[in-house]
Amino acid sequence: MAYDFPGPCEVLLLIEAAHSPDQTVLSEALSITPLNGFARSDDPDSGERRCVFTGDGRVEITYRAEVEVVARTGDLAAIGPTAIRDLPHDVLPYLRTSRYCPSDRFESFVEREFGRLQGGDRVAAIIGWIGRHLDYRIGASTAATTALDTFVDRAGVCRDYTHLMISLCRASCIPARAVSAYAWKLQPPDMHAVAEIWLGGRWRLVDATGLAPIEGMVRVATGRDAADIAFMTIFGRAELAAQSFSIRATA
Amino acid sequence: MAYDFPGPCEVLLLIEAAHSPDQTVLSEALSITPLNGFARSDDPDSGERRCVFTGDGRVEITYRAEVEVVARTGDLAAIGPTAIRDLPHDVLPYLRTSRYCPSDRFESFVEREFGRLQGGDRVAAIIGWIGRHLDYRIGASTAATTALDTFVDRAGVCRDYTHLMISLCRASCIPARAVSAYAWKLQPPDMHAVAEIWLGGRWRLVDATGLAPIEGMVRVATGRDAADIAFMTIFGRAELAAQSFSIRATA
Amino acid sequence: MAYDFPGPCEVLLLIEAAHSPDQTVLSEALSITPLNGFARSDDPDSGERRCVFTGDGRVEITYRAEVEVVARTGDLAAIGPTAIRDLPHDVLPYLRTSRYCPSDRFESFVEREFGRLQGGDRVAAIIGWIGRHLDYRIGASTAATTALDTFVDRAGVCRDYTHLMISLCRASCIPARAVSAYAWKLQPPDMHAVAEIWLGGRWRLVDATGLAPIEGMVRVATGRDAADIAFMTIFGRAELAAQSFSIRATA
Amino acid sequence: MAYDFPGPCEVLLLIEAAHSPDQTVLSEALSITPLNGFARSDDPDSGERRCVFTGDGRVEITYRAEVEVVARTGDLAAIGPTAIRDLPHDVLPYLRTSRYCPSDRFESFVEREFGRLQGGDRVAAIIGWIGRHLDYRIGASTAATTALDTFVDRAGVCRDYTHLMISLCRASCIPARAVSAYAWKLQPPDMHAVAEIWLGGRWRLVDATGLAPIEGMVRVATGRDAADIAFMTIFGRAELAAQSFSIRATA
Repeated sequence: MAYDFPGPCEVLLLIEAAHSPDQTVLSEALSITPLNGFARSDDPDSGERRCVFTGDGRVEITYRAEVEVVARTGDLAAIGPTAIRDLPHDVLPYLRTSRYCPSDRFESFVEREFGRLQGGDRVAAIIGWIGRHLDYRIGASTAATTALDTFVDRAGVCRDYTHLMISLCRASCIPARAVSAYAWKLQPPDMHAVAEIWLGGRWRLVDATGLAPIEGMVRVATGRDAADIAFMTIFGRAELAAQSFSIRATA
Repeated sequence: MAYDFPGPCEVLLLIEAAHSPDQTVLSEALSITPLNGFARSDDPDSGERRCVFTGDGRVEITYRAEVEVVARTGDLAAIGPTAIRDLPHDVLPYLRTSRYCPSDRFESFVEREFGRLQGGDRVAAIIGWIGRHLDYRIGASTAATTALDTFVDRAGVCRDYTHLMISLCRASCIPARAVSAYAWKLQPPDMHAVAEIWLGGRWRLVDATGLAPIEGMVRVATGRDAADIAFMTIFGRAELAAQSFSIRATA
Repeated sequence: MAYDFPGPCEVLLLIEAAHSPDQTVLSEALSITPLNGFARSDDPDSGERRCVFTGDGRVEITYRAEVEVVARTGDLAAIGPTAIRDLPHDVLPYLRTSRYCPSDRFESFVEREFGRLQGGDRVAAIIGWIGRHLDYRIGASTAATTALDTFVDRAGVCRDYTHLMISLCRASCIPARAVSAYAWKLQPPDMHAVAEIWLGGRWRLVDATGLAPIEGMVRVATGRDAADIAFMTIFGRAELAAQSFSIRATA
Repeated sequence: MAYDFPGPCEVLLLIEAAHSPDQTVLSEALSITPLNGFARSDDPDSGERRCVFTGDGRVEITYRAEVEVVARTGDLAAIGPTAIRDLPHDVLPYLRTSRYCPSDRFESFVEREFGRLQGGDRVAAIIGWIGRHLDYRIGASTAATTALDTFVDRAGVCRDYTHLMISLCRASCIPARAVSAYAWKLQPPDMHAVAEIWLGGRWRLVDATGLAPIEGMVRVATGRDAADIAFMTIFGRAELAAQSFSIRATA
């Protein structure tokens, strides 16, 4: 990755594999050249790995990691619903409406469309509905696009599928959050955004686009929506002049 | 408080005084009648006190507490800015755009209007700007109103003032969050929403409406915006048929 | 009708039966008491009858008319599509996106949902879709609600049904406009908003709510959406303090 | 101008100089090659010149005209306000809220900011406000940007300046509309969007960007906002694959 910053500004980088329970980082190496104003800002609770540096002019960033991923299964149907009172306190926030997932707007829709289904059956039905009603189309959305926009536009990319998936689950009183990941089984391997749904007592990854197998993902960041998991956030007046990015899956 | 629920549904209640470092709850008593499906969902990190119950028909809720509040001072000017790298990891999320505080939309505005000011001076200037450009007007906003709406409408209530305050601070790279409180020095005493700004190494309460003295507040909930601090959230199909609410400050 | 104006302001009144080709006004009487600053602003082309007066304090308005309506038929199916080049020049504007009918946003949806249907068959399918997916619910919308909101909310009143109907037709390249009317066959008789669709060489009334028979309507105003057909528009600083309104169908 | 259409679709072209009272078209020549499904759709009232053709594959369009423009003056200050009752019936619609000019949202703002000014003085103050608070920046907006977005973003291009100008005038009860024009005194000469304000009994052109002298403009289309004056509207499924456009002012 190479970036050009027109002037000095702080940058939050969210590209390292999470040290989370569902994966083991065997080895990793992050290099930022030149390196200025560096500080780590890791989250000890979630294992999310964040760092801050000051960009100015050309900055080259390389990250290489070897990660072992816990086996994940994707069968959601027939998992019963969870009462609100049985949710852990740190899961509750993922029921709430958020910037790109205005779930409060979809309550009538989910009741009309999926009213008789609960728990895993409802989540499976939501995945099916999204698959039938959305087109994967690059250019159909921007960084400002919300799940409400995507619901109307009927098209988007992985970020938009994920936002709509999350919104329809939350509107159904099912906790849902966003995860950024390296999807090394995608063709070609790429950064990917997927949803994670709380069902049957634990979080379960769901790729509403159906493009990437969930067992082929390395978790990076976890949050309410794209506002929390952007892989790079530039603070201050500077705007990025140029960026190039590539990812390579090594066996 | 008395509520009428047309059918059974779970309710999240966020009305108890927080067990947070800036106040000491000397005594408290929460009563919900009838009490069904009750569970606590307190947050051990923030001290936020949450509980869940199942409402059905008429439910009466009483909460009484005696709270000692740590002395708070409101002088923000002349406090220097904080670099992103010096922010604690759990403060970072309060820089992000959220449902009712789309701070990403205000970056040009704050740069144009407050570009030469930093840290506490900028926060003080933002408070001044809001005071000069907004009218406190009940009925000017709804539960769907965002800071962007309020910026255009130039009117709102405490929730709207707080959302705009938070948005303009975040757009200025200053962490900001929303707090619900009992403002017992308001006339009459009432639930109140205020902002809390990270400056000079700690959180500082700010009432952008200028109506309630910050030393006269008991903290209840803390979050990104109104989505996190609503004092009651009703899950499921039921809608509230009637509600009445009163608060009384006892010496 | 009785209105209370807190201070003097001009008011545009759009409540008289149109002198349009599809109905004949046999007799009519409009009375405004007290009458100040009165002027007529009728549109000679459409036959729309508009007047302006200055309200101040209590104003009573009575309008009574006897109107003969041309027979109208509602069968749209099997009418072929019209090429853009065959549209009269004054019909073209009703293909355009407007304030409450952002038809540009629905192009993907109509193509996905109704792509194989054209002309009257598509209009009939749109009416059917709206009937199946929307609930008529008073209070589900406000004066700011757009067709995009209604599409997401899945509920609304006659104004919202009409806006969504118009939007889906325009997105299908079928001209559509909004009409306010006295629906004297409604139970009870009331002001009503309906759509009018250009098909088979002429405008055809469509009530997407299915509540009012189109042969039981007296046309008042015609325009792009609710922005054009509001029955009263108050200009200036004044806000209406109170209004009461009733309509009575006399045999 | 050259366009590539991936499949056949009808196109509305709005690029010819208007045959309006404020300019005389001495000679003109429009050529569309190849020419299919052609029809004229001129508006006899406004003198707007519109035509429809069917595009398929590569289409080349050339338009050349010699136009004599009536002298226009730009001094607005000191012109008194016009009462609603004194507006011609065909000026009234330009007081209404429209797709890109949601003037209903700005009523509080104009009252707060320009409340003591009327008529030409208010229009002059609005022009001044826009000049001080907006940056002309290409890329700051898209085809979906409304005046509300621009008011928040504080940046835009001629279309955005015009939409905000129109919105603030209508919110002030001053009729305003959008005009597309060839601005041959711009450097370089280009298509331009400007506002037209009804003041002192006639329409007056205003370029809120301050970039183009109003006496150096040839009027093309006139309407409520960009929805009405787009120089090309493509109907149906086809999307434009490529377009190139140039304008040359010949002495």
